[in-house]
Amino acid sequence: MESIRRTKIADLLKQPAIDTTVNVKGWVRSKRGNKNVNFIALNDGSSIKNVQVVVDVENFDAELLKKITTGACLSVVGKLVASQGAGQSVEIQASDIELYGEANPDEYPLQKKGHSMEFLREIAHLRLRTNTFGAVMRIRHNMAIAIHRYFHEHGFYYFNTPIITASDAEGAGEMFQVTTLDLARTGADGDVAYDKDFFGKKTNLTVSGQLEGELGATALGAIYTFGPTFRAENSNTPRHLAEFWMIEPEVAFIDKDDLMDLEEDFIKYCVQWALDNCMDDLEFLNKMIDTTLLDTLHSVVKEDFVRLPYTEGVKILEEAQAKGHKFEFPVTGWGMDLASEHERFLVEEYFKRPVIMTDYPSEIKAFYMKKNADGKTMQGTDVLFPRIGEIIGGSVREESYEKLTNEIKARGMELDTYKWYLDTRKFGSCPHGGFGLGFERLILFVTGMQNIRDVIPFPRTPKNAEF
Amino acid sequence: MESIRRTKIADLLKQPAIDTTVNVKGWVRSKRGNKNVNFIALNDGSSIKNVQVVVDVENFDAELLKKITTGACLSVVGKLVASQGAGQSVEIQASDIELYGEANPDEYPLQKKGHSMEFLREIAHLRLRTNTFGAVMRIRHNMAIAIHRYFHEHGFYYFNTPIITASDAEGAGEMFQVTTLDLARTGADGDVAYDKDFFGKKTNLTVSGQLEGELGATALGAIYTFGPTFRAENSNTPRHLAEFWMIEPEVAFIDKDDLMDLEEDFIKYCVQWALDNCMDDLEFLNKMIDTTLLDTLHSVVKEDFVRLPYTEGVKILEEAQAKGHKFEFPVTGWGMDLASEHERFLVEEYFKRPVIMTDYPSEIKAFYMKKNADGKTMQGTDVLFPRIGEIIGGSVREESYEKLTNEIKARGMELDTYKWYLDTRKFGSCPHGGFGLGFERLILFVTGMQNIRDVIPFPRTPKNAEF
Repeated sequence: MESIRRTKIADLLKQPAIDTTVNVKGWVRSKRGNKNVNFIALNDGSSIKNVQVVVDVENFDAELLKKITTGACLSVVGKLVASQGAGQSVEIQASDIELYGEANPDEYPLQKKGHSMEFLREIAHLRLRTNTFGAVMRIRHNMAIAIHRYFHEHGFYYFNTPIITASDAEGAGEMFQVTTLDLARTGADGDVAYDKDFFGKKTNLTVSGQLEGELGATALGAIYTFGPTFRAENSNTPRHLAEFWMIEPEVAFIDKDDLMDLEEDFIKYCVQWALDNCMDDLEFLNKMIDTTLLDTLHSVVKEDFVRLPYTEGVKILEEAQAKGHKFEFPVTGWGMDLASEHERFLVEEYFKRPVIMTDYPSEIKAFYMKKNADGKTMQGTDVLFPRIGEIIGGSVREESYEKLTNEIKARGMELDTYKWYLDTRKFGSCPHGGFGLGFERLILFVTGMQNIRDVIPFPRTPKNAEF
Repeated sequence: MESIRRTKIADLLKQPAIDTTVNVKGWVRSKRGNKNVNFIALNDGSSIKNVQVVVDVENFDAELLKKITTGACLSVVGKLVASQGAGQSVEIQASDIELYGEANPDEYPLQKKGHSMEFLREIAHLRLRTNTFGAVMRIRHNMAIAIHRYFHEHGFYYFNTPIITASDAEGAGEMFQVTTLDLARTGADGDVAYDKDFFGKKTNLTVSGQLEGELGATALGAIYTFGPTFRAENSNTPRHLAEFWMIEPEVAFIDKDDLMDLEEDFIKYCVQWALDNCMDDLEFLNKMIDTTLLDTLHSVVKEDFVRLPYTEGVKILEEAQAKGHKFEFPVTGWGMDLASEHERFLVEEYFKRPVIMTDYPSEIKAFYMKKNADGKTMQGTDVLFPRIGEIIGGSVREESYEKLTNEIKARGMELDTYKWYLDTRKFGSCPHGGFGLGFERLILFVTGMQNIRDVIPFPRTPKNAEF
């Protein structure tokens, strides 16, 4: 085989060096042709686009060509020429083909045809080789890059809060327990010897890095987490994962208005990044998955977000209901927790643009949120999005040691558990706030995919921890 | 208080707008002075450097000034002027001071004086406010940014492999179990009802994302993981954490030489990034923690790494021992696993530059590594660094389905467990390779810190899961 440096297909298609000899390596997406000439669509994962390889049958061993089937892996050397055919601008006239790995058509499950998302979930280790999952994973990567860039450019520090924790954060959800005890030997006498466990006490997987993130923000000024979080909830829905990734920025010296500006600027930056860097993949998804995708993305970056106090939002919902709009969960008035359908009504039907909802009733929100002077509402700043509902949950935090300890006590929580957290208010307390973004919710929004299990490589859900 | 937009201290010191009125917010590092004038060193986490605030005592309430002690949080408005004193080029003449939060000197543990690293570990929630930990955390952030930039610029996709897994990867270490079973009720009859556990089977925290990463690389071409990994080893050493972060790139169509080039280029990029972006913090650490730090970093980016087959390495060690060099673990000859002291001898004393050690005996390495034609050695490519020993562990992977299944069987491992992994070799197999970098080992190297517990915000070690 001629020794020529491999070119990635994305690079080759971006700046085609016509009439030079090139080497590409990748997987066969399809092969068609006749007894004189074969056309191989080759893909190497660098792009949704394939490169067409033209094979003059008489120049190659028939046995080799027979083994070139969908899924096989090849290295191809040949001349890059302008294409005669429709559908591609360039193609490679193969002079040399090396077969790295076959894919027996009787066994390889990804023959060229549409597969259901359900079937592909069962072969999650191979679905990455499909057009849809290639596109989703490249966009997922780009969203992670956009997030790190945004925060780095704005002076936030990436801060790794613990995954295994003895704290239960805010009681935000059911937790997984982490242990090195032998389960076949614990509890025989109804008692668990946690002094013999690895950490000497009961530990869990984190449900949120926020409380530890506040420790970072009140020292470094502005931090963000970006790591896995866990919920042991028995929810079999298209919106829930037991293991998902969260981004939680936390900022010292921020007030409610600045926090809303940050949320809006941040999420627009991410969506704009996708539009600037992932257009091939987005166009594919716009065609195959959701034909409103590109319109929705463009609209989100263009429109100012509505800033809507909860009290006004509930009024709008009550009026809509009075006028005959049917909600699955009826609007019961001030104090109610909004369901996704309520959020989406405000965003998709009433305002037709994203909404930052503020000043929720304190009772339906977490203990650490800063109360307004009215004593009933708190400075929350949740961002509601089309198709998704709540995509960001944010708030200004209560910085008064006294008010915070009173709130903890009033909720019947253990003061002792939060001693280290309260130290941020005891020593050099400062106004601060932050928000949480579920990474997979962002990916759902940006890809148009319908099920959260299809925007993470290996989803963890009840009874499912394959691969 | 005058309404002026806050300036971060890092920005203020970088481009001082002399004679303008500025607003800074931060925490008091120290206060000194006399009855006429106070000097406050204020830090907001954006830089190792403080800004000096000059307070004309007669213009302020005495009660307020009394409360301004180390650790207190302030907002200061004043004129930025060229400084008369030594030690800083600019200072702020305070016209207005707002006290956000006091820090009672009788209780605040971080008074201005040196604290031992051991003591600071006990107050890990506050140690982030010290110069040393501020510097380490800013560098840690910058290393994460460098890693994402490097891979993004080189066409790798960030790929989130699962944290909770039913696979035991390569048997790389002791694992933590993840469960929702009630430990007080399991095992009463010596049997564990895993069908009732959340995932319907026994699950653990991942020890490596590599095997799943290979699924990504053989679809997307090149991926990297960057996430937490776990070892339930009862190791109380300055080099071990139960929870640590790993970076694991995996690349299709790479051979041993290209893999070594990638490793060297990648790690030099990271170190160069630190030199380009963290010099204030590095200079502080070079002065306070390790006076050879800057020299070591400069030397690593300048020198070509030695590429040394294991067999030659062992010969050098045997000769050194024969000439009288005392190793704690004697060199026993070919086939031995190298200890950190052996690696460091080669790097620090023999070659005086980093070494990529290659072609280890297969028996001392993992099952998935590609064997050389000699049948005894495999295409490993570990990078050995001064002070650290092995900082990167890499290899070309065995791509032959037949050889890999034989190796799994020969090692007495269960073929069935690796069915999904073997599918990468069954369908469209390709030459590929990759490496793993322990993030905290990189941070140890770049900061000069001695103990791995001091380069992660909240270390997890045996009997320790605080915060």
